[in-house]
Amino acid sequence: MRSNVGRVGERLLPVDPAIRGVAEQLYSLVADAPIISPHGHVPARMLADNHAFENAAELFVTKDHYITRMLHAAGVSLSELSGAEPRSTWRHLAENWHRFAGTASGYWLETELSDVLGITIPICAETADEIYDAVDVVLASPEFRPRELFRRFGVSVLATTDDPLDDLSAHAQLREADLGGHVLPTFRPDIYLDPDAASFGSAVDALLATTAEPATFSGYLAALENRREHFVRHGGVSTDHGVEEPYTLDIDADEAAALFQRVMRREASAADHRAFRGHMLLQMARMSVDDGLVMTVHAGIHRNHSSATFSAFGPDTGHDIPVPTTFTRGMKPLLERYGLEKNLHLVLFTVDETTFSRELAPLAGFYPSVYVGAPWWFLDAPDAILRFRSAVTETAGFYRTSGFIDDTRAFLSIPARHDVARRADVAYLSRLVMERRITLELAERIARDLVDAIPREVFKL
Amino acid sequence: MRSNVGRVGERLLPVDPAIRGVAEQLYSLVADAPIISPHGHVPARMLADNHAFENAAELFVTKDHYITRMLHAAGVSLSELSGAEPRSTWRHLAENWHRFAGTASGYWLETELSDVLGITIPICAETADEIYDAVDVVLASPEFRPRELFRRFGVSVLATTDDPLDDLSAHAQLREADLGGHVLPTFRPDIYLDPDAASFGSAVDALLATTAEPATFSGYLAALENRREHFVRHGGVSTDHGVEEPYTLDIDADEAAALFQRVMRREASAADHRAFRGHMLLQMARMSVDDGLVMTVHAGIHRNHSSATFSAFGPDTGHDIPVPTTFTRGMKPLLERYGLEKNLHLVLFTVDETTFSRELAPLAGFYPSVYVGAPWWFLDAPDAILRFRSAVTETAGFYRTSGFIDDTRAFLSIPARHDVARRADVAYLSRLVMERRITLELAERIARDLVDAIPREVFKL
Amino acid sequence: MRSNVGRVGERLLPVDPAIRGVAEQLYSLVADAPIISPHGHVPARMLADNHAFENAAELFVTKDHYITRMLHAAGVSLSELSGAEPRSTWRHLAENWHRFAGTASGYWLETELSDVLGITIPICAETADEIYDAVDVVLASPEFRPRELFRRFGVSVLATTDDPLDDLSAHAQLREADLGGHVLPTFRPDIYLDPDAASFGSAVDALLATTAEPATFSGYLAALENRREHFVRHGGVSTDHGVEEPYTLDIDADEAAALFQRVMRREASAADHRAFRGHMLLQMARMSVDDGLVMTVHAGIHRNHSSATFSAFGPDTGHDIPVPTTFTRGMKPLLERYGLEKNLHLVLFTVDETTFSRELAPLAGFYPSVYVGAPWWFLDAPDAILRFRSAVTETAGFYRTSGFIDDTRAFLSIPARHDVARRADVAYLSRLVMERRITLELAERIARDLVDAIPREVFKL
Repeated sequence: MRSNVGRVGERLLPVDPAIRGVAEQLYSLVADAPIISPHGHVPARMLADNHAFENAAELFVTKDHYITRMLHAAGVSLSELSGAEPRSTWRHLAENWHRFAGTASGYWLETELSDVLGITIPICAETADEIYDAVDVVLASPEFRPRELFRRFGVSVLATTDDPLDDLSAHAQLREADLGGHVLPTFRPDIYLDPDAASFGSAVDALLATTAEPATFSGYLAALENRREHFVRHGGVSTDHGVEEPYTLDIDADEAAALFQRVMRREASAADHRAFRGHMLLQMARMSVDDGLVMTVHAGIHRNHSSATFSAFGPDTGHDIPVPTTFTRGMKPLLERYGLEKNLHLVLFTVDETTFSRELAPLAGFYPSVYVGAPWWFLDAPDAILRFRSAVTETAGFYRTSGFIDDTRAFLSIPARHDVARRADVAYLSRLVMERRITLELAERIARDLVDAIPREVFKL
Repeated sequence: MRSNVGRVGERLLPVDPAIRGVAEQLYSLVADAPIISPHGHVPARMLADNHAFENAAELFVTKDHYITRMLHAAGVSLSELSGAEPRSTWRHLAENWHRFAGTASGYWLETELSDVLGITIPICAETADEIYDAVDVVLASPEFRPRELFRRFGVSVLATTDDPLDDLSAHAQLREADLGGHVLPTFRPDIYLDPDAASFGSAVDALLATTAEPATFSGYLAALENRREHFVRHGGVSTDHGVEEPYTLDIDADEAAALFQRVMRREASAADHRAFRGHMLLQMARMSVDDGLVMTVHAGIHRNHSSATFSAFGPDTGHDIPVPTTFTRGMKPLLERYGLEKNLHLVLFTVDETTFSRELAPLAGFYPSVYVGAPWWFLDAPDAILRFRSAVTETAGFYRTSGFIDDTRAFLSIPARHDVARRADVAYLSRLVMERRITLELAERIARDLVDAIPREVFKL
Repeated sequence: MRSNVGRVGERLLPVDPAIRGVAEQLYSLVADAPIISPHGHVPARMLADNHAFENAAELFVTKDHYITRMLHAAGVSLSELSGAEPRSTWRHLAENWHRFAGTASGYWLETELSDVLGITIPICAETADEIYDAVDVVLASPEFRPRELFRRFGVSVLATTDDPLDDLSAHAQLREADLGGHVLPTFRPDIYLDPDAASFGSAVDALLATTAEPATFSGYLAALENRREHFVRHGGVSTDHGVEEPYTLDIDADEAAALFQRVMRREASAADHRAFRGHMLLQMARMSVDDGLVMTVHAGIHRNHSSATFSAFGPDTGHDIPVPTTFTRGMKPLLERYGLEKNLHLVLFTVDETTFSRELAPLAGFYPSVYVGAPWWFLDAPDAILRFRSAVTETAGFYRTSGFIDDTRAFLSIPARHDVARRADVAYLSRLVMERRITLELAERIARDLVDAIPREVFKL
């Protein structure tokens, strides 16, 4: 989306006039740059089908667990938000809008309404219906369907996140479309690698069934390699791994094969499960060295904290909670084996800010394979991005970081999210310039590289 | 206390002129608002008796372990500070005053001297006696007795912290008094719930002796319920729990009864003790669902680090030291069972800042029962409060936080502490306004709610 | 080095004009103050021999693992940086100079080039040879030899780090020299205390061989005491301890003697090794109480993360990575026994920022023996220093911190490093002044004390 720098020029930029002057100059260089989104959760099918969005509730509430969790915390039950009448769902949000003040979600949503849909009515209980109706009017227009917005947003690359057994037909369809940019699949094999996943057994059975491979460890590895190859053929550039603990384990082939058999026969202990997960993360790195897929690890989230909510409403309903995270010892076996490989790109994401200066910047400041993932999930917000840059840059600079990823299901929020990151980055850069730590010329190069050269290098685009 | 905005208007507010302008505007809305203090350690007896304060040493040094610890670190032994001649004790502080530069304690004490007692002489060795004498003069005046100050401070609610077996007679006496505000008891049962507490055995015996309950687990639970009911009758709104580790455990009634018997017979292991503490924290949540008392948990402090000091001078002598803290897994059993209950309010306090963005904001952003406790103890200071708002707000907003608590024994410091929190909060809000993240109108509402509607909702006032 | 305040006055100081005004005033008080460097790694031999530096590669690249690690991360192999032709090594740095933007290393190096060598050409691929040649010209001048620079830098005290068996002849030689300041040895016994160190066995054998002591625990202790005495005789004021985990253990003499025997006979378990390290750290504190040597503990680094790199290039090659660190429980046995001793000065350094507000400030705010070490290693940078002051000061003030230590092997970088710390400290102080938290007069005293009285007290200079 082409931002109107004049109109919204002040947003999120430093308030000090001298720093703001520099920030505005830097921002003007990147405000309209194409969007590279190398990790996110927009369904390819949505773009392939290109159906119009239905209403404000569907667009802004029910599918966004950043939003529903806060309404739930305010006392609105999730059943009032999912199965309910959409206007009533939207009203819940409007009535509770003050609760989103200062949150990233609140900022994005206001930006989407104003900058994408052109609706600038302040959100509150009294305006709920007026906004709901205005959104309906806008969504009826063909130019607000997904593909049209994709072009308008200026998306250059959009990576989706996909099941390894997905046939990627939606992606095949999109390669034919004239979108002005590329939609790429991402290989996300968690449930095939984690014996504690509810669907692990059936997932591995289905995986093996797609091939002629026997139900041995080497057959299982070969099946995974086949599916990765399928993703490579469809333009995939990366694999993604969501783990509670960034733990890796290097064991020999016999030991791994025996472990696999225990796991498959359901004779494995909890320690075996951990070992299996840890070894498979290392196997993923091995495969990445072979096939060149970038490996992203999103670590440190305890999923589905509330069992009652999970039972009633499923996963991704707002109660995934971070835990203390450390990478130094847990990633060592993987890095000992593959960390110096030229072909490996390993992007480490965290929701535990303590690891930024303590571990991720030092690791990325040595291993050519390691990049510090941009602030993510709860940390994908203006202040948190500034804390990230402050914590990482003095040790690892800018060129060992990943570039922004939006990680979103909320398609309409993509320009707002990238814009926040761009503003936060130039805010940080402009302070460095005014503190005489870097020249303006260098800041200009870095600002540009952060939205283009850097994500292209990291994600091999 | 009515602050003089003109005179002290600059204190702690942002230096940038544009942000300061907004901050002053917001501060003017809350500077004189009544003080709601829903958690602290002022003795109800002090207000009931209403004796004059004795001297500067008693008022500012001997009873404030924030102060004595720093003098101890400077080489003044605690015996020189407790049993000693008060003028000499005060001189120790004055001679070491430069050591308090930049500390919260130093800021509070200067504010108390100037804003409450009207003494603006800079503190140093040379002025020690002059200030001591000036304080003596002021304290002789009847308007500086506790109840008169209570009224002058504009305290609307002051919660004390009390032993479960306290007869609460001081509170009964105060309900009759004309204070212009309410003094409420708080149920603090730590020594009755922790088998590792030195006085656990005698405490539980005394607890059971107050009732006709047998020395069984259910008798013990019933006795606790009785005492909570006693607190409710005397206006109590909350229970408070100080734990080193925020750990909870859900076990069935038979298992719990057997565990209780092992504990009482002193046959319990260290693991049993931990299990008992963890289960009793969960039982407290159950009782809160029943009787509606708000539950506050102050976690992560290793008490009495120096055994020699503890032996000689007792607890609360300055060597309670924080430890790494995590809530996500440890509070899960309690939240699984009671986290979705409408009647439960659970306020989680930490002295480990890492939990703010990593755990507390995400938990409070989902569970309707969970609130993020305000920065506390070592974190109750201007910069720390700004870090707290920055870490919490982008994930959980303002309305999932507790409002300020002063947690103090130092009655005279209450206005200064609340004033610091108000200034820090408007400093943060004014930056959001100037960064175009929230409107001034919304910031005004939030500033007001933080000192009134929010603590009233959280603490059911 | 005498800084030119006019020319470089803006560097790193706050951008806000009002705060900058105060900061410049404070900076003018300390800009030219003598350098006290109580911990670092400059070899005494370098100063004793006083050979000219060879070239830009030797001076700025090959011996500085802050620099080589980042080039390695950029894809330059370490073999291209160590054995290679120096001009080619320098070119690697120049080509990758944008990667150092915003890093502390980058800032120091530019400052060294401009302020020490007078070379102000911007670094890039095109200017690599020009700068290399310019450095050659400068280094040929006698005034750029180590001793001449030592005088020009205005070093008052420079502590080196030395093996306990070092004869300290270079130090003896330097005591005769007219340097305008003192060079002091530091006792660094890690490999003599850690059974997991590769050279532990041979080190202890060599230690015992220097004395008539038998190979018993008491003989081993006596030998260590002898060597400490040797350092005291040569002007040493401190011992330094690098540990992955700040763990201490108090066991009785018999148990310790038996443990020593198991360790020496290689019959010790991993737990024994940990116990031995923990007990020896406590023994070092005992010896410090006896001989008065200040004890510095640098904790929390996992050394030599990449085994392949360690095998090929040895230690200190850029892959020492921090781990989560906690002091509260691990240092308790040592503090229980010696923490209240007047003669003990224990300076705790961390690379885990989370410990600043959580543990180190509270510990130093009570124990007269404990000081919070200045930000170190990855945290020795402008933003990190401000975070440190913000995290520590509100709890422990300024007078429980250690004063700056540069910890560097890079002799030429010493003035730049101290200058960064001075600028960061006055930046912090000036904000406190403008927020009306301390007076300008007090800030002036603190600014001066931080570079003089404070390190002199902490390190008993």
